[in-house]
Amino acid sequence: MSSLSLDHTHDPSLRSWVASSNTNDTDFPIQNLPLAMARAAGSSEPFRPFTAIGDQALDLVAAADLGALPAEVADVLRACVGQGLNPLMAAGPTLRRRCRHALVAALVEGSEGGGPARLSAALVPQSTLEFTLPCRIGDYTDFYAGIHHATTVGKLFRPDNPLLPNYKWVPIGYHGRVSSLGVSGQQFRRPLGQMKAPDAEPPSFGPCKRLDYELEVGALVGQGNPQGQPVSIDQAEDHLFGLVLLNDWSARDIQAWEYQPLGPFLSKSFATTLSPWVVTMEALAPFRRSFSRTGDHPQPLPYLDGAVNREQGAVSIQLEVHLQTAAMCAAQVPPHRLMRSDFADCYWTFAQMLTHHASNGCNLQPGDLLGSGTQSGAQPDQGGSLLELTQGGKQPLTLPNGEQRTFLQDGDSVTLVGFCEAPGHRRIGFGPCVGTVLPAITG
Amino acid sequence: MSSLSLDHTHDPSLRSWVASSNTNDTDFPIQNLPLAMARAAGSSEPFRPFTAIGDQALDLVAAADLGALPAEVADVLRACVGQGLNPLMAAGPTLRRRCRHALVAALVEGSEGGGPARLSAALVPQSTLEFTLPCRIGDYTDFYAGIHHATTVGKLFRPDNPLLPNYKWVPIGYHGRVSSLGVSGQQFRRPLGQMKAPDAEPPSFGPCKRLDYELEVGALVGQGNPQGQPVSIDQAEDHLFGLVLLNDWSARDIQAWEYQPLGPFLSKSFATTLSPWVVTMEALAPFRRSFSRTGDHPQPLPYLDGAVNREQGAVSIQLEVHLQTAAMCAAQVPPHRLMRSDFADCYWTFAQMLTHHASNGCNLQPGDLLGSGTQSGAQPDQGGSLLELTQGGKQPLTLPNGEQRTFLQDGDSVTLVGFCEAPGHRRIGFGPCVGTVLPAITG
Repeated sequence: MSSLSLDHTHDPSLRSWVASSNTNDTDFPIQNLPLAMARAAGSSEPFRPFTAIGDQALDLVAAADLGALPAEVADVLRACVGQGLNPLMAAGPTLRRRCRHALVAALVEGSEGGGPARLSAALVPQSTLEFTLPCRIGDYTDFYAGIHHATTVGKLFRPDNPLLPNYKWVPIGYHGRVSSLGVSGQQFRRPLGQMKAPDAEPPSFGPCKRLDYELEVGALVGQGNPQGQPVSIDQAEDHLFGLVLLNDWSARDIQAWEYQPLGPFLSKSFATTLSPWVVTMEALAPFRRSFSRTGDHPQPLPYLDGAVNREQGAVSIQLEVHLQTAAMCAAQVPPHRLMRSDFADCYWTFAQMLTHHASNGCNLQPGDLLGSGTQSGAQPDQGGSLLELTQGGKQPLTLPNGEQRTFLQDGDSVTLVGFCEAPGHRRIGFGPCVGTVLPAITG
Repeated sequence: MSSLSLDHTHDPSLRSWVASSNTNDTDFPIQNLPLAMARAAGSSEPFRPFTAIGDQALDLVAAADLGALPAEVADVLRACVGQGLNPLMAAGPTLRRRCRHALVAALVEGSEGGGPARLSAALVPQSTLEFTLPCRIGDYTDFYAGIHHATTVGKLFRPDNPLLPNYKWVPIGYHGRVSSLGVSGQQFRRPLGQMKAPDAEPPSFGPCKRLDYELEVGALVGQGNPQGQPVSIDQAEDHLFGLVLLNDWSARDIQAWEYQPLGPFLSKSFATTLSPWVVTMEALAPFRRSFSRTGDHPQPLPYLDGAVNREQGAVSIQLEVHLQTAAMCAAQVPPHRLMRSDFADCYWTFAQMLTHHASNGCNLQPGDLLGSGTQSGAQPDQGGSLLELTQGGKQPLTLPNGEQRTFLQDGDSVTLVGFCEAPGHRRIGFGPCVGTVLPAITG
């Protein structure tokens, strides 16, 4: 049984004895059970693995101590304490599924052995926790698999040549910066950098004037592959652990001047924000879609083309960007939604990205992060970055309170949202991914 | 006193009681004392920190146990066991210099306290050791600071536009792959990958046909900087720990097809080889040179321009590439030297690369690796890659045994060599950095 198979844990009629998980709008019904590393806010305890259920979080090691998990799962979860989810990632999909099944059994309404009586001691409100990155990330690779983004941005950077000849054949990607990855709630200084307006000579150095976000989905690698041993497209799903939301903050003015010929560097490396809860591949099974190429899009080369990938390679996730300015925050105006897109439109599946990545013998390791690239929709109002929504900064957006934006101002907070819906299934979500721009350091 | 200052440890008349370190041609006289992580070959002990002296290696924790090192240095070295040199890197230049001074006192001829009698038990032949990477490398950034390489290669990839307008202003760099970094002795499979000849349609997938090496110098970061806090050019030297040799293996056919617009990815990520011994910035002090820009080269922007960098920013290191084919190995013919260049020709100093890297607030961490980019000289026979020496594969090299090469064949071993010479100073060297090409996995 693979991570793509539906089983009783996907039954939409399942309810939990944790009442807040049974509402229609929760991101975290019992069908989801995402994983994160957290601890009591303000404490100096080591971070421990948790799952989310409604507005509560279950301390998995505490649950194991209370006998709710099989011994081999408990051992792996204990090894995660202070380390991140890497041991669970390395253990592969079979053990991860066993963990999911045991958690459903423990949290389901009417569970045997008296779930609430037994496990209440391991349950805490999510609002009392602080989160860290879900795992030690050895390498972060950012792909460029949003074709609408690539086309729109390509026009801005290279009007004569928006989509390069390799785009429809190669899952284009590049290495990203690991040290500046942070978890939702990340606040970062507006970056300084070198930039040059087309008519300026020489270039100048100073605070970024064109600060942007990018709406991405991140995949975390489960079991790895040894150096020199590729992963076939048919095996690739077994190497995926789960998905998160990812904000690839971007300094457009720095990027435009620095990116040739080796790609973006300091325009991205100042900060990247992830959502704390990893939605496992098992939880996403009801939302898988076929992957196909039609029209003038060539079929993938054989190493990127497999039956499982064609039938279920894509994942439908509704993705949104919300913006809250400092003025909106002060006036208690909630974040304003700027766009929505569907991750099912991604030009390559994560299985294809992973197989391509390992095709040269590169060793992927448990906890490695793959970014999808910006997930814009086909329509102009579905841009996954301000660069797209404002046509390169030429058409400001007007917010409900009258403020305008071409690029981000100090104090702006950007929230990424992701959720999955399908007929006959419970809605599941990712929880928010929030980041805030602080003023640049000067003087 | 900074890492750039000369002191008594640089006195060329110093000799050690380890006789093999007193020859003129050793890489490791008492004036060098590089650091590595090693253990008895074939053992399963944790890797421990060592220094090199002649053909011997001193186990630093054993030396500390024998009372040869100050307590605060001993504590930091013990924290390195099984972890890498990161604790020593994080401790900064003052403690590192204290370690160097103590090691010179212990190893010098006529040392007080009876050096040989006391420390012989901590001394082992280097040939009995196996090495691992000198530290946990969180992020690897590869720069492109060899202007002769950038110009020559630029002509091959972009005949109309060899050196892009940003080159003389921005220390161009990009993120590299960490998981596939290995230490001298690394053997790796010829990568498979997607490629497309100019006249072919569609692209194909198969073993790389244009496999190459790149001669680089690597810098390891010592103390880090917090996210959001840049490092000024005047502070940058205090954040450098030491240098290694670095072979940035490159698949030119994969690179040509994949690299636009986000830069090289799978053409590099299958393997990268480092020399095991880190030559500290203190050992390199006698070989520092002024950094200057003349002719049509613009002066660096102010954030990359400082007095110390101008006076002593460059490092003169003689760099060489040697090639030994499988046939040469079988016939016991030693590696053949293909070229020599001088790292003092590098277009940017490591201090400038580090300051640029942190200028956007990116946090650099102890053990991070910065690559210099390929270090070619100004002359055609000084190319730091086969791409350059064979004019893009058009002019084969003929080896002394009559074999020819445009790019690397299976079984070829490439050795990088680096050493420093200056009047009135002892020669020091890096030890070899060797890597070998294995056949591609097929079927």
